[in-house]
Amino acid sequence: MAELRREPILQRWVVITGNRWEVLAEVLRQRREGGGRACPFCPGNEGETPSEVFALRDPTSSANREGWSVRVVPNKFPALRVEGDIERTGEGVFDQASAIGAHEIVIETPSHYADWGTMAVEEVAGVLRAYRERSLDLRRDDRFRQILIARNYGPGIALLRHPHSHILALPVIPKRIEDEVRGLLDYHGRKERCGYCDILRQEKRAGERVIRETGTFIALAAFAARYPFETWILPKAHAHDFGTIEDDQLLELAGLLRSLTGALQSLSPGLPYSLVLHTSPLLRFTEPRYHWHLEIRVRIEVGGGFEWGTGFFVNPLAPEEAARLLRGEVGDTRRANSTE
Amino acid sequence: MAELRREPILQRWVVITGNRWEVLAEVLRQRREGGGRACPFCPGNEGETPSEVFALRDPTSSANREGWSVRVVPNKFPALRVEGDIERTGEGVFDQASAIGAHEIVIETPSHYADWGTMAVEEVAGVLRAYRERSLDLRRDDRFRQILIARNYGPGIALLRHPHSHILALPVIPKRIEDEVRGLLDYHGRKERCGYCDILRQEKRAGERVIRETGTFIALAAFAARYPFETWILPKAHAHDFGTIEDDQLLELAGLLRSLTGALQSLSPGLPYSLVLHTSPLLRFTEPRYHWHLEIRVRIEVGGGFEWGTGFFVNPLAPEEAARLLRGEVGDTRRANSTE
Repeated sequence: MAELRREPILQRWVVITGNRWEVLAEVLRQRREGGGRACPFCPGNEGETPSEVFALRDPTSSANREGWSVRVVPNKFPALRVEGDIERTGEGVFDQASAIGAHEIVIETPSHYADWGTMAVEEVAGVLRAYRERSLDLRRDDRFRQILIARNYGPGIALLRHPHSHILALPVIPKRIEDEVRGLLDYHGRKERCGYCDILRQEKRAGERVIRETGTFIALAAFAARYPFETWILPKAHAHDFGTIEDDQLLELAGLLRSLTGALQSLSPGLPYSLVLHTSPLLRFTEPRYHWHLEIRVRIEVGGGFEWGTGFFVNPLAPEEAARLLRGEVGDTRRANSTE
Repeated sequence: MAELRREPILQRWVVITGNRWEVLAEVLRQRREGGGRACPFCPGNEGETPSEVFALRDPTSSANREGWSVRVVPNKFPALRVEGDIERTGEGVFDQASAIGAHEIVIETPSHYADWGTMAVEEVAGVLRAYRERSLDLRRDDRFRQILIARNYGPGIALLRHPHSHILALPVIPKRIEDEVRGLLDYHGRKERCGYCDILRQEKRAGERVIRETGTFIALAAFAARYPFETWILPKAHAHDFGTIEDDQLLELAGLLRSLTGALQSLSPGLPYSLVLHTSPLLRFTEPRYHWHLEIRVRIEVGGGFEWGTGFFVNPLAPEEAARLLRGEVGDTRRANSTE
C-alpha cells in the first residue's frame, strides 16, 4: 500500500509506493533491454490506457477512440490513488498519511516522435489548455493542497518516448513549494513587494539574462542557476494562480515554450530536459502573494555530483552565456570575444 | 571567473564556474566517446595530479611517487579556489561572493577497479582517516563555514572509474545542511532533545528499518526515504562533529560501510550509488546540537522524475523491504510471504 511519510527533521513529504524489490528489478531489466511493446499513447491504442478524463478531439470522434489531438488519462501506475479519505497517523517522531491524490498523464500529441520544438504553436497551446482545465477540475476536490505539473523529455529521463506530461494533485504541499512560499512571505513582510516581481524588474533593466520577452511573459536564465540552461518563465504582471491564465495567454506561452525548446534542440539535438510548473498551493483559498512560473532544466550532469544530499550545486555554464546561446547570439559572442 | 551566487527567494548558494558552452560541449563529447587517456589516479601517474596534501604511504617512499595506499590532492579542475579573500557584493535583489574554498580529491586505493565492498576494512578505514585529517586541517582556515565530503560510484555517476571522493571546504553553508540545522534547533527548542537521537532510539525499538548495528554506529533505512535504499549511518551516542571521531571508531565505521556497499553490489552488481557526510557547520565554533551522519543513495531512477524542481519524491521501494534486503533476509521474506 502506498503511503505518504514525513521526514521528521526536514519535514519533507515522500510517497513510498511500496513495491517489492523483484518488481523494481524487473522494471530495471526491462528498461535496460528495451520494451518492444507497442506505445500505449499512440493513436489506435486508446484501449491500453484508462478512460480519458479530458480530450481535445474532432467533434465527430468518440471518446477513447482516434481523432484526438490532446488526451488526458489517469496514470495506469499512479503514485497516488484517488479513492478514500486522508488518514493521518503518527508513531513517535514519525508522521504518515494515506497516499491519496490524483496522478494523470497528458498525452500531448498523436505523433510519437514529436517534441514542443517541432510541434505547431496551436498544438503546444492545446497541451497548456489541458493543464489548465485539469487543474481547475482537480482543485474542486478539497482534499488537495497542491497541483503539480511536470514534463520530462529525452532518453534516460522519460520512461516513454511519446510526448507526455504528468499532472499530480497532492494532499500535502511539497517542500520546494513550501520553501518558496516561505521565502516570498518573508520578502513580502520586509518589503511589501513580490520577490519575483522585483527579480523580473531588475532583470529587464540589466538585460543580460533575458532570453525572450512577449507581451505577457518573460523567459530568464536564472541568476543562481543550479544547472546549465536553467530557465524561468514568469508572467510579467503579478499572478499567483496558473488556473486563471486566459486563452490568448496560453497561445503566447506556447509560442515562447516552443521557441525555447527548439533553441535547446538546435544547440544539441536530443538534449534531455525537464520542465515543472509552480503555482500557488490550495489552502481552501490560494495564496495571492505567490507568483506562478515555469522552470526548465537541461538534464546534463557535468557538476561534481554532490548536489544530492548536500543542496550544494556547481553549475559549469554562466547564466549570461546560456541566455546568449538561447537568444541565438552565439556568432555575435564569438566575434565579440575574438577581439579581446 | 567562478562565482558564488545566492538565489534570492530560496536563499540557496550555487557555484557558477562559468565555463563557456564550447568547453561544456567538449566535455559531453569526450564522455560520450570515452576517454582513452591513462587514469591520472593510478600508481605511476602521480605527476598527472597536483602535489599531494596528505598520503598514507610506505615510509620509505617519497611524496608524489608510488608506494601510497591513500592519496589526497587538490582537484585539477576545482569548483572553488583557495587563493584570495571572500568578497561579498550585492546588486539589487542579488547577492554574490567570490568562489573561495578548497576542493580536494581523495584517491582511495591504488587499485583502479576496486570499490569499498571489495577492499579490506583497513583500506576503507584509511580513506575515512584521510577524511578526518583533511577536515581538521582545512577548518583551521577561518574563511570556511562547512566541510562537505561526497563520493560517487558507478557508470554515469562518477566521471572517473578509479575510486575517489571529493572534499570541499565552503565559505557558505549549503541549503540542505542549513535546513537540517534549522530543523534540529526547532526540535531542540520544543523538546530539549536531539531529533536524530530520538529517531535512532525509536528505530532501535521498532527494529524493522535497522540494517546493522555496531558498538558505536547504527545503519538505518530512512523512514521517509526519498530513493530506493536510502540509508543513514549515525553514531549512536550524540556527536555533532565528524572531526572528533577516534581511530577505533574509524575502523568500526569502515567495517559497516564495507558490508553495506558489499550488500548493495551483491543485490545488483555495478549498481551506482552516492554517499555524503553531513557534519556540523563551522561558525567560529561548531554547533553542538547537530548530529553528524552519513547518507547513502542508490542511483536508480524509477520514480516519475518530478523530484527535480518540486521537492516531491516518489520512492517505489519500502524502507522496511530495503532494510530486509540489506540485512540479507531476502529468502526469509519470500518464505514469509508465500504463506500469506
